[in-house]
Order: sequence, then structure tokens, then C-alpha cells
Amino acid sequence: MAAGEGVKLIGCLVSPLALRVEWALKLKGIEYEYVDEDLSNKSALLLQCNPVHKKIPVLVHDGKPVAESLVIIEYVDEVWKERYPLLPRDPSERAKARFWAKFVDEKCVPALIAIFSKQGEEQEKSAKEAQEILKTLESGLEGKPFFGGETIGFVDISAAWIEIWAKITEEIVNIKLVDEESMPLLCVWFEHVLENPIIKECLPPREKLLEHIKGVHRRLG
Amino acid sequence: MAAGEGVKLIGCLVSPLALRVEWALKLKGIEYEYVDEDLSNKSALLLQCNPVHKKIPVLVHDGKPVAESLVIIEYVDEVWKERYPLLPRDPSERAKARFWAKFVDEKCVPALIAIFSKQGEEQEKSAKEAQEILKTLESGLEGKPFFGGETIGFVDISAAWIEIWAKITEEIVNIKLVDEESMPLLCVWFEHVLENPIIKECLPPREKLLEHIKGVHRRLG
Repeated sequence: MAAGEGVKLIGCLVSPLALRVEWALKLKGIEYEYVDEDLSNKSALLLQCNPVHKKIPVLVHDGKPVAESLVIIEYVDEVWKERYPLLPRDPSERAKARFWAKFVDEKCVPALIAIFSKQGEEQEKSAKEAQEILKTLESGLEGKPFFGGETIGFVDISAAWIEIWAKITEEIVNIKLVDEESMPLLCVWFEHVLENPIIKECLPPREKLLEHIKGVHRRLG
Repeated sequence: MAAGEGVKLIGCLVSPLALRVEWALKLKGIEYEYVDEDLSNKSALLLQCNPVHKKIPVLVHDGKPVAESLVIIEYVDEVWKERYPLLPRDPSERAKARFWAKFVDEKCVPALIAIFSKQGEEQEKSAKEAQEILKTLESGLEGKPFFGGETIGFVDISAAWIEIWAKITEEIVNIKLVDEESMPLLCVWFEHVLENPIIKECLPPREKLLEHIKGVHRRLG
């Protein structure tokens, strides 16, 4: 069996968390089977592979499941360490990368989601808070083209979907979030990261994402 | 300058997150200077070392700050990799360790904190939910003496403080949380982990912790 044949990604096309794992696999050139999960009717495979959270994404490698997107990416980077490194080698730079990926999950995600659960002035306040958080994220670039330095790495693939989500959110709630004047470096970074052919290739069709994010909005709003 | 002289831990004696970093340093036998932070009047050093979250713990190694307790522990394990390994070597086991440490922070911590913000029946419901989460944590032991296998590792030091916090919570709200009948393996693990001399040595005095956790209760209750 070729190495790639033993890799299965249980995901869902509109999930940013599955998307970042796909980006990791593609950047490393790892062949994998994509299992598109129906989240309204979870499969026995998913429940068996992630009994704790029952959530995607899950990577199944040679029969062993790995859950949680950032944990999966670290796993992928460790198993296929010779191919396209995602985390830097230097421990201090690795710590920075983990810090910012954690920031994306613990600060950016809740801030973007919160906008949908508010109305009127409260919503505008939420949007401002989300902008502040994006500006803080921008500081993590430290003037480099990518969080990983000269090439796309761990933080870049963890955070790249934010632009797409934020732009669709702007469209739904009609409030500006990603602002070239207050976060110019982040805007340039979004542009660079999303024009990378591998990143682009995995993006779900915009219409599908719009429909999905509108669904999130309806559930929370 | 000896290696140890360049290591400073900005912490706070009653913080479980600082405690887990102390355990990591002590298990590895790394000498460090402990800077006890006054969280009601944060120091310039803390604000400069962790401008994003302004929170402890922060490790400063040869002048470079590393923030976020789990990120710090991974850093410590990478820099001093020859001494007492905290994470397993096998990528699949490493992924499991990261999964469970994340579970502690994202599920156990909020579940324990939630008990304090409720009253009466709602509080009992919260306590039951916390118990379920502790039972799930127990499943991560997979019948081994420690999460790390035969010795204390990454998940063990991330989770050991739960017993102390839970026992003090039981005392404050008068509801049983850690239950030998429903989570016997976790109770044995708590016992083993807390009788380790290094783990024991760093524990703050119980009265100090009780006072601190009562303070958390008052703020949330």
C-alpha cells in the first residue's frame, strides 16, 4: 500500500477547520481520500473516530484517528517532516506559531461568530471588537509576508479562511470588518495567501459558503 | 551564564496555569527565577512580555517571552529535549496528548468554572455536566497509570490541578464532583499524580488556594 492510500480526511466542504487540514495535506503533497460528512446525520465512522467531540475534521492515518484541526496539522507535520515544513524549526518560532494559531481559534473565531448573535448597536460594537482582534492578529505578521516568514505555514493555513468568512459576514450584516486603512498588512497577507494555487484550489464554491454562513447567521441571529 | 540563569517564569502562586509550567520546569530539572505577579496591578514586565493577552504564565528564556501555558510546556520540551521528555515520541501518541490537554482547557476548565455561576438546581445540573466531562477525561487514561503511560507527562501536568480545584469546589458548593464509584481510574490517577514529590513540592498552601477559589466563586456567584 502506498503511503497516501492510508490517509483519509473526514471533513465537510464548508468547514474552515477541515479546510485548514486539506491545505496542510495539499501543501505537503500527501494523497488522501476525502470523506464528506453529513453533519445533520453523522456517520458511524465519525462517531467511532471522534467519540469525545463527534466533530469534524478527523484524519485517519493507517487506521488511527487524529481529531482537532490544529492537532491534526501538527501530526501531519511530524509524520511527513521531510516534506514542506509547516511549523518553523526554531523552538521560539514554533511557540509563536502555536500562540497565533491558538489566538485564531480562541479570539478570532468567537469574535466573528458573535457578530451574528447581536442586533443594531450591539452588532456594531461586536464588529468593532472583531476588527480590534483582527488588528491584533495583524501584529503577529511582524512585517513578514506570511506568519511563517517567506512561505505559507501553520498560522497561515489556520487563519486564511478568516478573510472569506469576514467578507461574507460583511455582506450579510452590512458592516465593514476587513479594512485596508486600519489593517493594511493583514489585507496584503489575505491577498497573498488566497492567491496561492494550492490554497485557492481547495476553496469551496463561494455560493456554497454563502449559503452555509447565512445558515449560521439564521441559527444565531 | 549557566543555562538556568536565563529562565524566568512570570506566574502567580494560585494559578493552575502557572503551576503546570512550574511542574514542567521542575520535572526537567531546569533552574528558573519565579516572578510572582500581582494580577490586580500588572507589572510592566508582564505587559511587555504578553501584550496580546496580558496574562500569566509567561516564560522568559534568554530574553525571549513565550506565552500560553501549553505552548510554554511544548517549548520547554523542545528546548530541553534530552531531559525528562514530557510529550511522547510517537506522532500518534503526541497527537493524543495534545488532544487531551486541549480537552482539559476547553472542556474541564469551563465546566468547573460554570458551577460557580449557577444556583440551586441549575448548579446541580452544572455539577453533573462537570462530572460527565471528568468521566470523559478518565477515558483518555486508556487504563494506563498516567496519561503519558508509565510516567508523568504533558497531559498529567496539564490536568493534575483539577483534583485540588474540584475538591475545594465540592467544599464551597457542597456537591460531590470527584466520585470514586463513577470515575475510579481518574481517582487513582489523581492520587498517584499528586503524591509525586515534584508535583507536591510546587503546590501552593491549601488555605491560599481555598481563599483564591472562594474569590472566584464570589465574583461569579
